[in-house]
Amino acid sequence: MNEDREKQPSADAPSELRQDPVSGEWVVIATGRAKRPHDFVSVRQRTTTQSKDMCPFERMFPAARGVYRRDGGNTADDWFVQVVPNKYPAFVEGACPVLREDGPYRVTDGIGFHEIVITRDHERPLGLQTPAEADLVLQAYQDRFRAIKQDPCIRYISVFHNHGPQAGATIEHPHSQIIALPVIPPDISRSIAGSQAYGEAHGGACVHCAVLKHELRSGERVVYENKDAVVLAPFASKTAFELRIMPRTHGAYFENAGVSERQGAAEALAVSLDCLFKGLGDPDYNFFLHTAPVGHAEMFSHYHWHIEIIPKTAVWAGFEIGTGIEISSISPEEAALFLKTIHH
Amino acid sequence: MNEDREKQPSADAPSELRQDPVSGEWVVIATGRAKRPHDFVSVRQRTTTQSKDMCPFERMFPAARGVYRRDGGNTADDWFVQVVPNKYPAFVEGACPVLREDGPYRVTDGIGFHEIVITRDHERPLGLQTPAEADLVLQAYQDRFRAIKQDPCIRYISVFHNHGPQAGATIEHPHSQIIALPVIPPDISRSIAGSQAYGEAHGGACVHCAVLKHELRSGERVVYENKDAVVLAPFASKTAFELRIMPRTHGAYFENAGVSERQGAAEALAVSLDCLFKGLGDPDYNFFLHTAPVGHAEMFSHYHWHIEIIPKTAVWAGFEIGTGIEISSISPEEAALFLKTIHH
Repeated sequence: MNEDREKQPSADAPSELRQDPVSGEWVVIATGRAKRPHDFVSVRQRTTTQSKDMCPFERMFPAARGVYRRDGGNTADDWFVQVVPNKYPAFVEGACPVLREDGPYRVTDGIGFHEIVITRDHERPLGLQTPAEADLVLQAYQDRFRAIKQDPCIRYISVFHNHGPQAGATIEHPHSQIIALPVIPPDISRSIAGSQAYGEAHGGACVHCAVLKHELRSGERVVYENKDAVVLAPFASKTAFELRIMPRTHGAYFENAGVSERQGAAEALAVSLDCLFKGLGDPDYNFFLHTAPVGHAEMFSHYHWHIEIIPKTAVWAGFEIGTGIEISSISPEEAALFLKTIHH
Repeated sequence: MNEDREKQPSADAPSELRQDPVSGEWVVIATGRAKRPHDFVSVRQRTTTQSKDMCPFERMFPAARGVYRRDGGNTADDWFVQVVPNKYPAFVEGACPVLREDGPYRVTDGIGFHEIVITRDHERPLGLQTPAEADLVLQAYQDRFRAIKQDPCIRYISVFHNHGPQAGATIEHPHSQIIALPVIPPDISRSIAGSQAYGEAHGGACVHCAVLKHELRSGERVVYENKDAVVLAPFASKTAFELRIMPRTHGAYFENAGVSERQGAAEALAVSLDCLFKGLGDPDYNFFLHTAPVGHAEMFSHYHWHIEIIPKTAVWAGFEIGTGIEISSISPEEAALFLKTIHH
């Protein structure tokens, strides 16, 4: 936590510690703080600082691994989404790496995939795209997931999107990244372990389905819903205005979601980003997909894929980095109430 | 990860995935990247933007829970360190909280302690303080740990220090924070579990002692050592120029460290921060202590307290937030080599 709170009026109510029912992690919801939704509205006007003329993503890539057009598009230049290999990858394609011992340590080569999913319009981030356009992006993700998971080295495929410099985007042109890894990332392992433990304790039930059912009944953290997907402000939000897009249908694998489910998630994503854009003045954010690891499908049937959106509403300081406990300065209930009014 | 790498020359060698031997977490060391230590030198000149006249910490607090003077100091105004309750605490003192169930969730009140440890000089951060001054800070931490652990609600005491706005410090005057919690934070639980698992597999041995022995033998990641403490660039560094201060003597509890050990750690801390200050041009950073949870000492005898310093050398973006895998763009070996030359 930073010392923001030193500047806030004192509170009668203590803060609340809330435990994530999947990961078991604790977060602090500082309910007593005086911050209100409007305190989070970004005052800066985002200005395009990287000109379209100089943008490396302003062209059709011959090496594209996938090209998607909007309805009616038919010329070669008429692309809306393209997937290209990252020119300077963090993970390179190659033979499966071998785990090596180095004294008390374990190490392996960074073998995998690193690709960029680019949308057409330089100045139109995902928050300004239509549900149909967002669906082309999810379609591109799905196709690449299906192709990459054929590689025998790959254990996990991560797709993420950085919007704005504070969220780590150094190239302004809207794009997502796909990184496929030869190991299962720690956050996914924990999520899987939590989901499995819940299943074992509840006759095979899915913890995400239980949460979804509870949230739909209570409604206080539901920001948006359509027939396939629900947008929640998670009970144990790690940051203010965190959003989670949950498909209604239980399924471990994003890449196996059907067309209707994918379209529902795309619409929910477009609405969520639109709410953040309008409600908070185009804040920087990250979003990413959580889905089951590649292979051993029988081990992951309890998992439930989803999308997490994390606006950059605070700096993670020594407390967060040193403990793993995040402090959110607005309750998810209040965040949901505010964002709901933006959409309606 | 952000797209910095898209701007970097391509690499022949793939990156390396390294596993932390305690937490089991993976990090990526992007060894093939072209970044060299000098690329991390902060170009900005830090300017004091919060004037001394307006600073809320520029006074002696009557409610101070501890006051420490430099040798020779004897007047009431001659303080160097004071510990004061946070005026707007994230955790408030009170009766032990009860864990409540709320549908599928668990929640508890934010009962605990939140204190500020202030050093005297407005414009002199810890990186510019002497080892003797840093020792007064550690002494203040220790005294508060010993007092706070008497409270029956407290399960963990966290002490951390934010330096610079990017590290979450909103009040510029140098200070640390102590937060005492009624739960064990997730990062500590994992660290404890990893340390315990290693002990069980190695006849009760301490994983931190094994790492220390390995590092002292190899020397390639040792930045500084004195008779009581060693400064390492960790093998599985989460950020560029991460540093860890390890006491040579095995001990689970920071607050039980003897005077010589505390002084050794203080000197190591002062040297580390001085190296970062001079070598990287006063970067923003966080540091924090990891120590065993309060109570049940027999359960934590395998633990080994230490201090971690995390410079803000990169933005954690969608990949890091979505997977828990950090990407460091310089190897700890190269970071150690560079920082070593700063001190000598």
